[in-house]
Amino acid sequence: MKGRRLLITGAGGFTGRHAVEYFAAEGAEVTAVVRGTAAEASIFPAGVQQVACDLGDRKAVSRMIETVRPELVLHLAGKNSVPESWRDPLLYMETNVMATLYLLEALRARPASRILVAGSRLKYRPDSAAGPPHPYSLSKTLEELVSLAWGTLFKQPVLMAEPSNLIGPGPSTGFCSLLAQHIVRSEAAAAAGEPAPAAFRLSSRHAQRDFLDVRDAVRAYRYILDSGETGKIYRIGSGTQRELGEIAGKLLAHAAAPVEIDWGPQAEQERQAESSPASAVPEKPPSASADKEVPPAEPEDDAAALGWRPETLFARSLADIIGYYRAGKEGR
Amino acid sequence: MKGRRLLITGAGGFTGRHAVEYFAAEGAEVTAVVRGTAAEASIFPAGVQQVACDLGDRKAVSRMIETVRPELVLHLAGKNSVPESWRDPLLYMETNVMATLYLLEALRARPASRILVAGSRLKYRPDSAAGPPHPYSLSKTLEELVSLAWGTLFKQPVLMAEPSNLIGPGPSTGFCSLLAQHIVRSEAAAAAGEPAPAAFRLSSRHAQRDFLDVRDAVRAYRYILDSGETGKIYRIGSGTQRELGEIAGKLLAHAAAPVEIDWGPQAEQERQAESSPASAVPEKPPSASADKEVPPAEPEDDAAALGWRPETLFARSLADIIGYYRAGKEGR
Repeated sequence: MKGRRLLITGAGGFTGRHAVEYFAAEGAEVTAVVRGTAAEASIFPAGVQQVACDLGDRKAVSRMIETVRPELVLHLAGKNSVPESWRDPLLYMETNVMATLYLLEALRARPASRILVAGSRLKYRPDSAAGPPHPYSLSKTLEELVSLAWGTLFKQPVLMAEPSNLIGPGPSTGFCSLLAQHIVRSEAAAAAGEPAPAAFRLSSRHAQRDFLDVRDAVRAYRYILDSGETGKIYRIGSGTQRELGEIAGKLLAHAAAPVEIDWGPQAEQERQAESSPASAVPEKPPSASADKEVPPAEPEDDAAALGWRPETLFARSLADIIGYYRAGKEGR
Repeated sequence: MKGRRLLITGAGGFTGRHAVEYFAAEGAEVTAVVRGTAAEASIFPAGVQQVACDLGDRKAVSRMIETVRPELVLHLAGKNSVPESWRDPLLYMETNVMATLYLLEALRARPASRILVAGSRLKYRPDSAAGPPHPYSLSKTLEELVSLAWGTLFKQPVLMAEPSNLIGPGPSTGFCSLLAQHIVRSEAAAAAGEPAPAAFRLSSRHAQRDFLDVRDAVRAYRYILDSGETGKIYRIGSGTQRELGEIAGKLLAHAAAPVEIDWGPQAEQERQAESSPASAVPEKPPSASADKEVPPAEPEDDAAALGWRPETLFARSLADIIGYYRAGKEGR
């Protein structure tokens, strides 16, 4: 990776910040693309070049690629909120599909650039009669289709990554971060003698997800950029399904003050179900969750096939998330 | 159809002109959307309202729908040239995918509007490793995916049509029209004592296609708008596969002057193959044609299930195409 020109989009985001830090430390010549057009102070380590570019502006993307001339591209930019995608579905199509195409099209001028596009496991099967569960799923499914299609049509070295739920310190809007934020707010309120914040809603404690530390995901991206096979989809996950209720318990163990949790209307019946042995809990959430994973329509490769392994202990991820909010960087 | 407010996009195109004429004659209150923003003289029958709108302009589309408030929409607009899609693939994504979404999104404000989107049989299977054969196929495949997805996500009455190769009088760039144009040019050159135009290239005389008269297709659209089932894909075809060489022969029989045809490099070996009985000709073209049909990934309905039947004799279609160019409306 030493001395290689690497362009990272979405560099100001949760994963992007970790990626910039990691690849810069590995000696890559990192260009960090952040949203917007206004110049702002760099949020990145010394030596990282920060570039503001609106990826929805086709010409701006083309100029940016001509200037940076990257050897490697890690495309992390995109919108990723399911509720927001319901409110503005076209924004999701423009940001996740068309902006990715603008980037791929600009990179056709640089046929040797390897491009890793971060997809989502929340995709749907295009041949299913039910259709996508939400516009976010539609946008990520199409982003993957057009990325792989551009790769085959124009012989571009395009690779896809499908990370599971990424967790860790930083500005994430995921479950763990939201709950950690609630805990730290509750602690602060108790210390100041103020009323506790409104209860955190956790309605599906038995829903299961694969959680992966964002720093492990970033290392996986490096394996894929280094030695992944063009046109392939690499799944990246911890391999362990965890219940939201279990995670909530582990996070609450960190709390230095009482924390209010609303276990939701299903809580009572789920508590009864809890009396059954843990091994009887089904692999998938019992209810039709809006963001459940869809089994892949075709075989996909696991990043483990490239030698990558997750390294961060789950307890460390949770402690670092709590620590991030306690340090007061966000959320107060 | 009498008195119903019908919006037809791509109204200035080959199919659009026939559609406007047909639905206006059936008593629909037709709004014909043509490209561009400049006011120009109407090319349509009296009583048809002509509206200029750039479908790539999201706000313009929204305003247009608010003004017209259609009960029915026939979305024929789009780009459909395979070679052009190679030259400007993003244009195809913007025109065939995003413009369709702008229309569907604007129509969400009118939940009762039934929308028929004209797709293409040249789509590819998204789960195929080979990917799309050309950017046009990618754009039409995604147009279908997003149209059906918008239908299921937002409970919109979206229907899809997949016509085969449409032929007939009018500004088409299809095989029959191009050859008819060549014949009429050759006749004109001979009459004027000028040199004959360069030979018409016909390299795959045994390639087979289903050809359907555009006027039959327009009637099929009416059946689908009237009684088609929301979310379904209706295939529209003559049901007969015809060889390009056979069609060329039928068109050349109309010629009043010598017409030069370049039968292409494969001609000799194909002429030898011709000695085999016609029944031995395979259903599909033997060579991997760039625009061959892909078998549907899921069952699709035939417009025949709604009671529609093609009515125009093939010989009539060809004669009308020749007549169109002899009348000097185009191509000289």
